[in-house]
Amino acid sequence: MTGAATDAVLTKAAALMPEAVAAWSDFLRIPSISAQPDHAGDCRQAAAWARDALAKLGFAAALHETEGHPVVLATHPGPDLDPDLDLGAAAPHLLYYGHYDVQPPEPLELWPSPPFTPTLVDGPRGQRMVARGAVDDKGQVAAWLGAFAAWFAATGTLPVRLTVLLEGEEEIGSPHLEPFLNTARAQLAADAAVISDTNLWDFTTPAITTGLRGLLYVEIRARAASRDLHSGLFGGVACNPINELVRALGALRDAAGLVQIPGFYDGVAEPDAAQKTAWAALGFDAAAFLGDVGLTTPSGETGRGVLERLWARPTADLNGIWGGYAGPGAKTVIPAEAGAKISFRLVPGQNPEAILAGLKRFLAARVHPDLKLDYALFGAAPGIAVATDLPVVAAARAALAEEYARPPVLIGCGASIPVVESLKRVLGLETLLMGFGLDDDQIHSPGEKFEIACFEHGLRAHIRLLGHLAARSG
Amino acid sequence: MTGAATDAVLTKAAALMPEAVAAWSDFLRIPSISAQPDHAGDCRQAAAWARDALAKLGFAAALHETEGHPVVLATHPGPDLDPDLDLGAAAPHLLYYGHYDVQPPEPLELWPSPPFTPTLVDGPRGQRMVARGAVDDKGQVAAWLGAFAAWFAATGTLPVRLTVLLEGEEEIGSPHLEPFLNTARAQLAADAAVISDTNLWDFTTPAITTGLRGLLYVEIRARAASRDLHSGLFGGVACNPINELVRALGALRDAAGLVQIPGFYDGVAEPDAAQKTAWAALGFDAAAFLGDVGLTTPSGETGRGVLERLWARPTADLNGIWGGYAGPGAKTVIPAEAGAKISFRLVPGQNPEAILAGLKRFLAARVHPDLKLDYALFGAAPGIAVATDLPVVAAARAALAEEYARPPVLIGCGASIPVVESLKRVLGLETLLMGFGLDDDQIHSPGEKFEIACFEHGLRAHIRLLGHLAARSG
Repeated sequence: MTGAATDAVLTKAAALMPEAVAAWSDFLRIPSISAQPDHAGDCRQAAAWARDALAKLGFAAALHETEGHPVVLATHPGPDLDPDLDLGAAAPHLLYYGHYDVQPPEPLELWPSPPFTPTLVDGPRGQRMVARGAVDDKGQVAAWLGAFAAWFAATGTLPVRLTVLLEGEEEIGSPHLEPFLNTARAQLAADAAVISDTNLWDFTTPAITTGLRGLLYVEIRARAASRDLHSGLFGGVACNPINELVRALGALRDAAGLVQIPGFYDGVAEPDAAQKTAWAALGFDAAAFLGDVGLTTPSGETGRGVLERLWARPTADLNGIWGGYAGPGAKTVIPAEAGAKISFRLVPGQNPEAILAGLKRFLAARVHPDLKLDYALFGAAPGIAVATDLPVVAAARAALAEEYARPPVLIGCGASIPVVESLKRVLGLETLLMGFGLDDDQIHSPGEKFEIACFEHGLRAHIRLLGHLAARSG
Repeated sequence: MTGAATDAVLTKAAALMPEAVAAWSDFLRIPSISAQPDHAGDCRQAAAWARDALAKLGFAAALHETEGHPVVLATHPGPDLDPDLDLGAAAPHLLYYGHYDVQPPEPLELWPSPPFTPTLVDGPRGQRMVARGAVDDKGQVAAWLGAFAAWFAATGTLPVRLTVLLEGEEEIGSPHLEPFLNTARAQLAADAAVISDTNLWDFTTPAITTGLRGLLYVEIRARAASRDLHSGLFGGVACNPINELVRALGALRDAAGLVQIPGFYDGVAEPDAAQKTAWAALGFDAAAFLGDVGLTTPSGETGRGVLERLWARPTADLNGIWGGYAGPGAKTVIPAEAGAKISFRLVPGQNPEAILAGLKRFLAARVHPDLKLDYALFGAAPGIAVATDLPVVAAARAALAEEYARPPVLIGCGASIPVVESLKRVLGLETLLMGFGLDDDQIHSPGEKFEIACFEHGLRAHIRLLGHLAARSG
């Protein structure tokens, strides 16, 4: 594979861009909300859409059932199909992973347009696509599907061997992915994995993400009396689940932001001087980062930089809480039940199972004996560091440097992509994290968007990545 | 007025009981939920229903507008109308107060029958009426309306002068009652007030309530970022309103149950030995009280008896809390907003305004600088003690002793009836609190009920009360 071939593919991609955007829009119209049982059919439809799109390109593609939403698996032998492009058995083999499920869109009233009606609007950086999943992860997936389509259109094949794995449960903690990886281990063999589910450093600076926080996500349900009680007749005597839950959860962090579960920080390494220097060199504007979302002052652990807090320190965030009366006016009720959802972002060295056990002990020691606590686990993945000395990372550095006319920066990411750890542990694969989102894309929020420019650069960068990888192995 | 007249009225009442239950059912069918703006029309309809019922008996009755739901005011000159029963200008004059509004019925799925379809069902103590408002306060109001109807039917008039005041905002803290009391002071002149909105001691033991806790009810709204954020991309840096609210509210009570707002206990008197002895003599079964609602262990302040905690100690109860994602599964969101409703039951000596100011200072000192707190006040009434050396109390003791063949006990009540304090301060009236509810009536909860036997005893006790009061003054 040569630079000339890549140039031809890039030219073809420009002509095909309207088709790529149209396919992306079709994908976005399917409300594949994995968390909500009512949308199970939509998840299946999104999976089928992706399978059909891959089959149309020439992949051998199929849905695979799990105990939850189905997995899409597709393979293409790459240049082996085409003697003119033959790179032999040594052709690099990539596993592209993505997810077709999206976060719930609520609160709906805050959306500028319906979340499952993809809408192109003008913004300061040109047009942008507004929809749930616009970027996370349908838009990033659509970008690499567009890159594959351009390769097929220009050369009749792909320059590398490719396996595509799309799951439908990423947003709910991938409960059924790992059993599937174990079952399909042979079909998933590859040299490295590629995931586009991360961000650029900024609109003009590409990035490769080399560290991800893990995630422990727990729902807690607290029950006391057998029915709702009147707070006048029972107040001061009856165990109040909201009081108890709030008092116990309120003790989870101290005034300096440190999580109080014993052993929580076991195994957490302090970043070394070189890392701190590299982060400082990024020139991160913390005030602008916070100001963009209406904030002024970093929260969390005092005495550490913002990038350090985001990339190298674990957190405890309540993501939801409920109980009693939330309607207008007053209701003097002691409710029978209350609940909360809490998540911990984890860094390498922390053990999710030990922290879950510690959380349970922490809360049990602080609540009234009449309070019954039940737990549901929606994800337990450790934080991970990604290797940087891989052929796929070298190819990505070159591809991004060409596409953006500046080299990519190596960054951390506060979010979690638990599959990276599973791919490593189960399949032995290192993962390239090359993504094209921006911090202001409002993923998981109303008004999620993806800049068309980011989509197009992403699509082109994936074209270049495949070209570089093939050239390096040739 | 003589005992013979009362006996004739009681006989008449037995014949009229089906009509009294039918009228009560009509009243219950009107969903007069004062807290919910959608039900403003229903509140007006309930007021009109009561006005018409009183007018039909012979009262001069009218609706009076307020800035909220209307007030019903009705007067009857009593025996002055009837020369045969003339007690002269000295005829006692009672102000009966009640409320036609009810608590929200949610959660609807826990009701055995629709909350506004009054349903008679068999229970261990005979039939009971199940509906929102069955007892609180429509059932207790319907009982005294039935007593008045029996007096009219048997004697053509009432044995005392009566003013009836029904409001429609008791369940939301009576925000517009006091302005009305001030305006209508002349029309509300009376010797004493009577309220039936309390409980029996138990099914066979009548009670007069001589102490009521006050209520401070506050809604807190907490806002931070301008939009919902992804907890991976912002966790550890962005102010999380649930984290902040839970941490600050979680510090409100210490491990011994004491409220931590500085000055909260200022003015709170310790009960004296005589009071403790009287409470002990009641033989209260705390284990049964808690066991009835599925609990085993008193909550609240350690080191105090259950009746003392309920009747003589203030509380802090979270009545509602919300924020973030409460749907199925996981959503890794840092929400822009969260909120809570909190109420404090107050005892005599505590100043609601000072405690509200203390709460605001307490929370402001504990939250992140990016957290904006807004407060809405839904009630601020002090705790009160009711005089026991009044003619109306003596008449009630006699009436209850006859009706139940045992003397009433004098008890406290943990709940709040703020109008009692208003009646005293604005109109100079002491209040008789004579009610017929039971602790297991599930007021404010799904499945609220009123035993038919309690309704009938209540109706008859009100007949006797009027007879005794007239006889005493004659």
